[in-house]
Amino acid sequence: MRLAIDAMGGDHAPKEIILGINRAIKQFQDVEFTLYGDENKIKQYLEPTTRVEIIHTDEVISGTDEPVRAVRRKKNASMVLMAQAVADGKADACISAGNTGALMTSGLFIVGRIEGLERPALAPIIPTIDGQGFVMLDLGANADAKPEHLLQFAIMGSIFAEKVRGIKNPRVGLLNIGTEEKKGNELTKKTFQLLKDADLNFIGNVESRDLLQRPADVVVTDGFTGNIVLKTIEGTASSVFSMLKQVFYKNMKTKMAAMLVKSDLSDLKGMMDYTEYGGSGLFGLKAPVIKAHGSSNANAIYHAVRQAREMVQHDVITKIKDAIKQTSETKGGI
Amino acid sequence: MRLAIDAMGGDHAPKEIILGINRAIKQFQDVEFTLYGDENKIKQYLEPTTRVEIIHTDEVISGTDEPVRAVRRKKNASMVLMAQAVADGKADACISAGNTGALMTSGLFIVGRIEGLERPALAPIIPTIDGQGFVMLDLGANADAKPEHLLQFAIMGSIFAEKVRGIKNPRVGLLNIGTEEKKGNELTKKTFQLLKDADLNFIGNVESRDLLQRPADVVVTDGFTGNIVLKTIEGTASSVFSMLKQVFYKNMKTKMAAMLVKSDLSDLKGMMDYTEYGGSGLFGLKAPVIKAHGSSNANAIYHAVRQAREMVQHDVITKIKDAIKQTSETKGGI
Repeated sequence: MRLAIDAMGGDHAPKEIILGINRAIKQFQDVEFTLYGDENKIKQYLEPTTRVEIIHTDEVISGTDEPVRAVRRKKNASMVLMAQAVADGKADACISAGNTGALMTSGLFIVGRIEGLERPALAPIIPTIDGQGFVMLDLGANADAKPEHLLQFAIMGSIFAEKVRGIKNPRVGLLNIGTEEKKGNELTKKTFQLLKDADLNFIGNVESRDLLQRPADVVVTDGFTGNIVLKTIEGTASSVFSMLKQVFYKNMKTKMAAMLVKSDLSDLKGMMDYTEYGGSGLFGLKAPVIKAHGSSNANAIYHAVRQAREMVQHDVITKIKDAIKQTSETKGGI
Repeated sequence: MRLAIDAMGGDHAPKEIILGINRAIKQFQDVEFTLYGDENKIKQYLEPTTRVEIIHTDEVISGTDEPVRAVRRKKNASMVLMAQAVADGKADACISAGNTGALMTSGLFIVGRIEGLERPALAPIIPTIDGQGFVMLDLGANADAKPEHLLQFAIMGSIFAEKVRGIKNPRVGLLNIGTEEKKGNELTKKTFQLLKDADLNFIGNVESRDLLQRPADVVVTDGFTGNIVLKTIEGTASSVFSMLKQVFYKNMKTKMAAMLVKSDLSDLKGMMDYTEYGGSGLFGLKAPVIKAHGSSNANAIYHAVRQAREMVQHDVITKIKDAIKQTSETKGGI
């Protein structure tokens, strides 16, 4: 298989992107890569290999570019060329750590939506304290959603959890403000009924309080709520850790304590480390499009490659297509 | 002034409720109390005073009672009698640590809404790492909301922050998934425009990532999102602390470290302690109704009394009434 990589996207591009690719080349013998970006800079870091093609371009979409305009105007941007390669069938999947909005735009307008799939969804793996994580979607591809969209998110998440994460009969939960069936807003109440009737292992509502305990293998929510929750988890964890740091720097006694637990504490931070979990899938498109975190290091890129490779290997897109088609037929279209 | 207290509500009632009242009696010489509940049990803990009246009742609404049915059927429940006292003008404000849904129902149907105020809002103080906290609403009184409701929440939160919390010209923020004006879902985009035109110190969108850094003095959101965010903060903080505990219990070395930082760590947990911040106001009713946390101890009850007293002293309800009336007139009604 061949993966298209935006070598210029992200805070540490191209260095960390290429270092991640170097590692992936050794690990995954069945993958070839096309890298889009500044050839000279890429070559500074790329280890000798016959399995990488570089397509040179000077144009880059930056983190501050307005997404739709950037994708429309910067026809030769590394990200746009990468998406085009997938659309043209020259690559099986693509990965970028660049501008999230621009990648969603590229996915939607260049790679294209699966037929019958109304809204793509951004689906990261949320770290949990048991180190397993779970897939949650939508985390912000669309701010508003209808119950039918959430049903499609559940179907896609469930296929991904089973095929790529190897979870048999994955438990699907609906993020809500209470566990009882009648709880929630208009959206979640209607979605609950759709999920109950669907061919899914739907376990009911899950509460945000329990997310880090992995209450389900797939958690479904609208993009507004999902984005708010993700940022609340990140913000709270980082605030607690920074308060902790202050405690440890307080005086000689606490500094001594810090020395004693230093390695154990960094293990703890490691458990919450997103880089081990791969990137966020942009589900609902005609090919796997993976958004790696903006601050991705080599490890994060390596795991994003692993994830993209597994999505291609297990033909996740065809399985999503079939499931969506089947649901539309059963329901008489959405 | 006289405060009506549900002596039987909450996990540690009546003991902790009464211990909190004992402290409040000493501290606030201008307050008299009516306690509703089991007279014998109350007297076990109540210190001798002439400023407390006890109204005996055996009936209690439990945490698992279905709210609307419980309020309708248990006419003599301590919570219902408490709300009735406020409605009858026998008390100026009331406090309960009991069933949240039942208290909202009692507030809405017994105490009653302020004229022109469409939806009451649950408004706790969210703890922040600087120990100041901010008021956030709605945290779950209603799952669905319209932009006009969020405007009213902003007005009420702003009056409360200024009059009770003593913050001049309080900064009002809208919880959203980005800081730019155009970001968000239908609800937040429309609300942004209403808040911009209102007579408020509106500072724009705030992100959930920054909540513990106190990005505003008042943060406005719909009840579904607010409830999800609150539980995400609680769940994340508690997960991180429990992981931390595991680290400290790991071996002799880490146990020694734990001893060295024990008191400093409990200071840190204290910063996040809700009990210092009082209860959650149920805003939009004809009198102050305070929901104390279900697991309230004496300290939490004491601070809820402080908060209720300040709401009465500063005549917050009249100020909310006037502001709502003014807004309805300007806008030609909501």
